[in-house]
Amino acid sequence: MSEHIKVFLSEDEMPRQWYNIQADLPHPMPPPVTPDGKPVTPDMLAPVFPMNLIEQEVSTQRWIDIPDEVLQVLWLWRPSPLCRARRLEQALGTPARIYYKNEGVSAPGSHKPNTAVAQAYYNKAFGIKRLSTETGAGQWGSALAMGCKLMGLECKVYMVRISFDQKPFRKIMMQTWGAQCVASPSRDTQAGRAILEKTPDTPGSLAIAISEAIEDAVTSKGTRYALGSVLNHVLLHQTIIGLEAKKQFAKIGLYPDVVIGCAGGGSNFAGMSFPFLADKIAGKTNPRVIAVEPAACPKMTRGPFVYDSGDVAMMTPLLPMHSLGHAFVPAPIHAGGLRYHGMAPLVSHVLREGLIEAKAVQQLECYKAAVLWAQTEGFIPAPETSHAIAVAIQEAQRAKEEGKERVIAMNWSGHGLMDLSGYQSYFDGKLTDYSLPQNELEASLKSLEGLPKPPPL
Amino acid sequence: MSEHIKVFLSEDEMPRQWYNIQADLPHPMPPPVTPDGKPVTPDMLAPVFPMNLIEQEVSTQRWIDIPDEVLQVLWLWRPSPLCRARRLEQALGTPARIYYKNEGVSAPGSHKPNTAVAQAYYNKAFGIKRLSTETGAGQWGSALAMGCKLMGLECKVYMVRISFDQKPFRKIMMQTWGAQCVASPSRDTQAGRAILEKTPDTPGSLAIAISEAIEDAVTSKGTRYALGSVLNHVLLHQTIIGLEAKKQFAKIGLYPDVVIGCAGGGSNFAGMSFPFLADKIAGKTNPRVIAVEPAACPKMTRGPFVYDSGDVAMMTPLLPMHSLGHAFVPAPIHAGGLRYHGMAPLVSHVLREGLIEAKAVQQLECYKAAVLWAQTEGFIPAPETSHAIAVAIQEAQRAKEEGKERVIAMNWSGHGLMDLSGYQSYFDGKLTDYSLPQNELEASLKSLEGLPKPPPL
Repeated sequence: MSEHIKVFLSEDEMPRQWYNIQADLPHPMPPPVTPDGKPVTPDMLAPVFPMNLIEQEVSTQRWIDIPDEVLQVLWLWRPSPLCRARRLEQALGTPARIYYKNEGVSAPGSHKPNTAVAQAYYNKAFGIKRLSTETGAGQWGSALAMGCKLMGLECKVYMVRISFDQKPFRKIMMQTWGAQCVASPSRDTQAGRAILEKTPDTPGSLAIAISEAIEDAVTSKGTRYALGSVLNHVLLHQTIIGLEAKKQFAKIGLYPDVVIGCAGGGSNFAGMSFPFLADKIAGKTNPRVIAVEPAACPKMTRGPFVYDSGDVAMMTPLLPMHSLGHAFVPAPIHAGGLRYHGMAPLVSHVLREGLIEAKAVQQLECYKAAVLWAQTEGFIPAPETSHAIAVAIQEAQRAKEEGKERVIAMNWSGHGLMDLSGYQSYFDGKLTDYSLPQNELEASLKSLEGLPKPPPL
Repeated sequence: MSEHIKVFLSEDEMPRQWYNIQADLPHPMPPPVTPDGKPVTPDMLAPVFPMNLIEQEVSTQRWIDIPDEVLQVLWLWRPSPLCRARRLEQALGTPARIYYKNEGVSAPGSHKPNTAVAQAYYNKAFGIKRLSTETGAGQWGSALAMGCKLMGLECKVYMVRISFDQKPFRKIMMQTWGAQCVASPSRDTQAGRAILEKTPDTPGSLAIAISEAIEDAVTSKGTRYALGSVLNHVLLHQTIIGLEAKKQFAKIGLYPDVVIGCAGGGSNFAGMSFPFLADKIAGKTNPRVIAVEPAACPKMTRGPFVYDSGDVAMMTPLLPMHSLGHAFVPAPIHAGGLRYHGMAPLVSHVLREGLIEAKAVQQLECYKAAVLWAQTEGFIPAPETSHAIAVAIQEAQRAKEEGKERVIAMNWSGHGLMDLSGYQSYFDGKLTDYSLPQNELEASLKSLEGLPKPPPL
């Protein structure tokens, strides 16, 4: 008899449309604006993104068809299994059932290719030949490298110098998928050369790499820029995760009481949770939905809801979001994918609407949870994913105290096989907990001075 | 409409028994013998393996029940999907359909845990508390580390010094699963200390590591030794791969014309192919079955069928197998898992019976095939797996020339995310082809002099 340890979907059962939560928001989103407070128009974004993605970015249509060409690539690893973490439940002695959506089954090992493939497709359909992007730890860069190769586009990735040197394997992955990966700052852009002239030994930063990638996109022929999180269309492409999960839960006659995801820019959390929020907004169900962030980078739990830029150099429009200020420099925790100053406008908005909760967790609790996971469920999680696991364990323990048979659903956003050095530091006792000091937060928030303010809800 | 890109099985459909080909061999296997030619008795193996596994090693029972405790762990990643490599087919313009069994979905990333979990279970059931083993590149060591942790055993892995230094991530994986991993030669065994005294800077070898692991097993309380390939019971545990594949093909109304696997010790090849050979022996079907080895280590295509030892120090019994001689030192190709002097007795036997074919391929053809795979199917294969891919591509091209709609089935034994440095060497033009020179083969075969000879078929 089946114990529902894994729930698969056939290709026939795979969702054929993405879910756009913008159709169902109780209050409309404030628009992106320029520094003088004027709404950003699609034309302003045209040098950076193709118009079909800009249209998706502002669409309020509830369901958006997934093109066949995108589906055929997603089939390489999707539908991803919904799995029950029964051995973890047993170790915790909890009456709760913990289910996780395993996004680590993709070739680069995370949820990132869900949007990388879609973005490559839309750019190609718009006549674009080449994409540029930046990457920190390398998860996004490798996903876009694969997405471009499978769609027949060229790809150039500006990888933060310190990661480029410390994580040579990510670079080899990108090269295997035919992408060019250079250390940033590079000699290939004006922005990069200017910085190298002043500070030839700089370790680089995500802010610099974004500047280089955008300069590349707006100055190179047939090239556009691609971003791996934060934006509405990126979150849209990730909703296939939650849409599959809903079908999988329906197959076993369950519905989650709690939905959990880690949140850096917000895309994996949104991808898992927004389809469940659709039911919640419609009053059909009432799950608790929890976004988990590191205490070292607590934009949702301690950052205000403001208009802020996506990068230090303020090259992007101002987005309405929870932010620690674009000048914020996160502590060097191992969950590189969660070290970002702002939260996706859509995630910030549903938090403001009271539809979701945010929780901050410490690094040591996350690694402890990750090791318990590996020693019960086998798979070694990415440091980012361990944040979701830590809160799933908290919730399972609470269910035990309360004697409740809750169903906990979590997005298991990726595996940690390319991030094992963080585990080594943990085993060697080199990691510490870290909460952002209040004075540092206040200093960083000064970078928001003089910017327009979003309207009240 | 489904295009059968992926065929899943539910837990209910997962095989509940392993297939033992020893029940169906046209001629019986010659027994393992001592250097003076006497058959090895179970008692002789008792200090090294638990009696329940020794019984499995010599069993001729056709079907052997998979214990529930083993099934419950295998469910963490099994049943593995059977996938169609349609994008590769399109790139080749072949009328053939290429299906692959994706064993890269396990937590350590290969087929190895199929037997690691089973061996840990049987040792535990026999009252053993701790397992010792050796590992080269680290694939087997990390699988056994996970298997032991999930079954509640301790585990110690002797990892060849040069790999220990070059591949620190494998060691961290093992540590995450609670195993102790030391560089071999180590100061923890008499064998290790003796070698370090003479050659303190030695890079180590698999032969030394085996000696240390066996010494550990026979001298430590409650400890036994575990081997990741070659032996009959190891191949038995891997048959779940082919048994699942047969059910998956039946679901889509197909049966393979060609079955392909790479072969180092022989376990992944046997696991995929033996269930199909059962039909072939019974005269029900007649697939071609191809074992692929590197030209640098061509035991099946150029090594004689002999009695030989499994290790340099001749600590193991003599096994009837194709061998290059136990003194053989393979060239440093990147497919570390295929660098072994002998082939599993059961695989050697079915080759001798004419039930399978053997092919040797060159390293550059394999990396070229691996990169084409990654750029069409997404997943980056292990260097070992690329040998199976190379021959699948050869067969697909032959089908194109002949205009035949053949069904090609391949075991995709593991992913290459922990082996990316080989890809770097390939991209940098540092790899070359290499065929074992005849004079080196003849010199190595001298280590067989004076050993008993197996009887003719």
